[in-house]
Amino acid sequence: MDTLQVIQVNENYLKLKAGYLFPEIARRVKSFSSENPDLNLIRLGIGDVTEPLPKACCEAMKLAVEEMGTSAGFHGYGPEQGYSWLRESIATCDYQKRGCEISSEEIFVSDGSKCDSSNILDILGEDNRIAVTDPVYPVYVDSNVMTGRTGDANDFGCYSGLTYIPLTEKNGFEAEIPNEKVDLIYLCFPNNPTGAVASKFQLTKWVNYAKKYGSLILFDAAYEAFIQDDSIPHSIFEINGAKDCAIEFRSFSKNAGFTGTRCAFTVIPKGLKGKTKKGDFIDLWSLWNRRQSTKFNGVNYIVQRGAQAVYSKEGTKQIYQLVSFYMENAGIIRSHLKKAGLKVFGGENAPYVWIKVPEGMDSWEFFDLLLKRTNVVGTPGSGFGSAGEGYFRLSAFNSRTNIEEAMNRIATI
Amino acid sequence: MDTLQVIQVNENYLKLKAGYLFPEIARRVKSFSSENPDLNLIRLGIGDVTEPLPKACCEAMKLAVEEMGTSAGFHGYGPEQGYSWLRESIATCDYQKRGCEISSEEIFVSDGSKCDSSNILDILGEDNRIAVTDPVYPVYVDSNVMTGRTGDANDFGCYSGLTYIPLTEKNGFEAEIPNEKVDLIYLCFPNNPTGAVASKFQLTKWVNYAKKYGSLILFDAAYEAFIQDDSIPHSIFEINGAKDCAIEFRSFSKNAGFTGTRCAFTVIPKGLKGKTKKGDFIDLWSLWNRRQSTKFNGVNYIVQRGAQAVYSKEGTKQIYQLVSFYMENAGIIRSHLKKAGLKVFGGENAPYVWIKVPEGMDSWEFFDLLLKRTNVVGTPGSGFGSAGEGYFRLSAFNSRTNIEEAMNRIATI
Repeated sequence: MDTLQVIQVNENYLKLKAGYLFPEIARRVKSFSSENPDLNLIRLGIGDVTEPLPKACCEAMKLAVEEMGTSAGFHGYGPEQGYSWLRESIATCDYQKRGCEISSEEIFVSDGSKCDSSNILDILGEDNRIAVTDPVYPVYVDSNVMTGRTGDANDFGCYSGLTYIPLTEKNGFEAEIPNEKVDLIYLCFPNNPTGAVASKFQLTKWVNYAKKYGSLILFDAAYEAFIQDDSIPHSIFEINGAKDCAIEFRSFSKNAGFTGTRCAFTVIPKGLKGKTKKGDFIDLWSLWNRRQSTKFNGVNYIVQRGAQAVYSKEGTKQIYQLVSFYMENAGIIRSHLKKAGLKVFGGENAPYVWIKVPEGMDSWEFFDLLLKRTNVVGTPGSGFGSAGEGYFRLSAFNSRTNIEEAMNRIATI
Repeated sequence: MDTLQVIQVNENYLKLKAGYLFPEIARRVKSFSSENPDLNLIRLGIGDVTEPLPKACCEAMKLAVEEMGTSAGFHGYGPEQGYSWLRESIATCDYQKRGCEISSEEIFVSDGSKCDSSNILDILGEDNRIAVTDPVYPVYVDSNVMTGRTGDANDFGCYSGLTYIPLTEKNGFEAEIPNEKVDLIYLCFPNNPTGAVASKFQLTKWVNYAKKYGSLILFDAAYEAFIQDDSIPHSIFEINGAKDCAIEFRSFSKNAGFTGTRCAFTVIPKGLKGKTKKGDFIDLWSLWNRRQSTKFNGVNYIVQRGAQAVYSKEGTKQIYQLVSFYMENAGIIRSHLKKAGLKVFGGENAPYVWIKVPEGMDSWEFFDLLLKRTNVVGTPGSGFGSAGEGYFRLSAFNSRTNIEEAMNRIATI
């Protein structure tokens, strides 16, 4: 190869820090367990579900596989936006029943919220000012870095060009309105990683802010099913005026255990606008529709049938049981850790418990301590941002036996 | 909403012409069939398969669904790159058996070649000079337009900033080496839409060109299974030196009928390099690995089990039968159209027949004629680029009955 002439890469990737958090955890765990192959590791790190898929979903998928094996029931390319029967179930059950005026056309079915929340940048201009919370789900930050929407990171891992909104013990893990004008705001509630929720009052403040400044809220509600408190909104669209200023990401990963089955959706209200540099108004729904038609081929038919079963009578019941099971786990984690003298947050309306690391340690030191002394894998809070330093996330996604065993082991140290 | 302050959109989308080709066809067909609801339309337009999934794939997927319904067999998040058992089957059967030194680590399993061939731009710099053939699969062009890598389109739909390589009757639909230096070259062989193939000699010229100029070949081999002539390469990696200058896209959509099931893969050789503006060499494999880890969650477990079954003894046999069936269709189309006095190309090593439109008509006129007079849906060649004007694509993907019926109808006009 001629060493002078080679194609150019997107060098924004080089600004990315050490590696996406979860692969880094996987690396440390792999190294530890290859040295200690006989240990029984309990993984409460990555937020991955463990319980079987709901029966209703399995039955629907088995039927769909059988259909695909017949001439009459075969399905080729589906609509890039998702099948209308699924979009209608979503619009009715997840939105209209809660009083949100969202139509099936505003639902775009996809293979994951991680994809959608990063792909959404495709349709947005590069000069928008971006705000994220700190700590934050790393994908929001990394996808902005990768598309050149930030400068370099400082020693604390904070990228120049981003506005960080701290979620701290002091402010009750509330995302406070920033003093400056921002264009795109990523909000995730119930929050990953802190497990905090946003009240109707808090979200109304955000919607009012967004409407005042013409900002766009990117609302990640992947954990809405875990809300136990009836006063907490499940969707940003429960807030008046949100249809003028918000896009919502939802997923079947956590409520229905679809992390390995892959189905999610994004809600883009018709009429939501952005503008060109010249000042012409452009419909975001149409841009996303074009993006999905050109760069995506829809979710596979079998999985969409599985997702539809989530809304059946049996499915609804099974989802409820699944969510309750994980929330009982969260309760067990909370009470054991409190008893062990640790300060804990979250875990009441979310499957994550956010733990204050014992004095004198940092997040990765606590990670290593738990891994080595108890063989329990968690997630260091600093991996979610500099304000997460000194905290640690445990996930409630595991079997009851493992949750109890993990708590017993932690109690010993 | 304050009319002055709104977020900015990616206005490159506004450069896109009328709408992606296939949605535009869908629109015309929908409008015609809503006016004529009783007609029996035969769709040979979009390259969508029609025959049932191979039995081996269905059986593997049914088993996988059952596993997912049990605690022991449940699978949550899989590796973003795909399960190693699938990557190994691909590396062995599709590459090593053909003498290509491709390892399983170089295989990235995805949910579609359409996604991969557009997402690949994420990791590449914006200043690379892009070459596409004309006619061309529209996604290559549109994804470049959407990411701001082109200027505006002219009246013929050609975008400034792109190098177009004509595939014409005169040059035997061969992609000839351009006179200028280009950085990224999209090649698709067996070709969509012309059905032409590239010989080992032709591809060697391209690899030598790419190595000389440090270019990168983006080779789309989605139709390789349809090659009947043993002398035609199935993979760019059958060419010496291609590992230094090529990425390959492959799919289960057409060989195994996975258009609605969604599984594909991309091969990025380790050691393939790009560079920064400063001149530092950067590994493309690592960039893509990072891209997929951050913006993608892998293909669902059930479908990966289905794809793996393609390589089983039974699966291989069933795939062969499926491909043979469609190639017989292609033969029927070719012979009938020739008999009807039309000039036809392709259809011998590809599931597409490329037809010269009768004198005095353009591609969309022929589309409308066929739709209205014979109720057969094809694809106007001009939809694939200005050099496609005067041509028309028919796909061999349909039942035997429909293919024969379509040919009988066309014979009458």
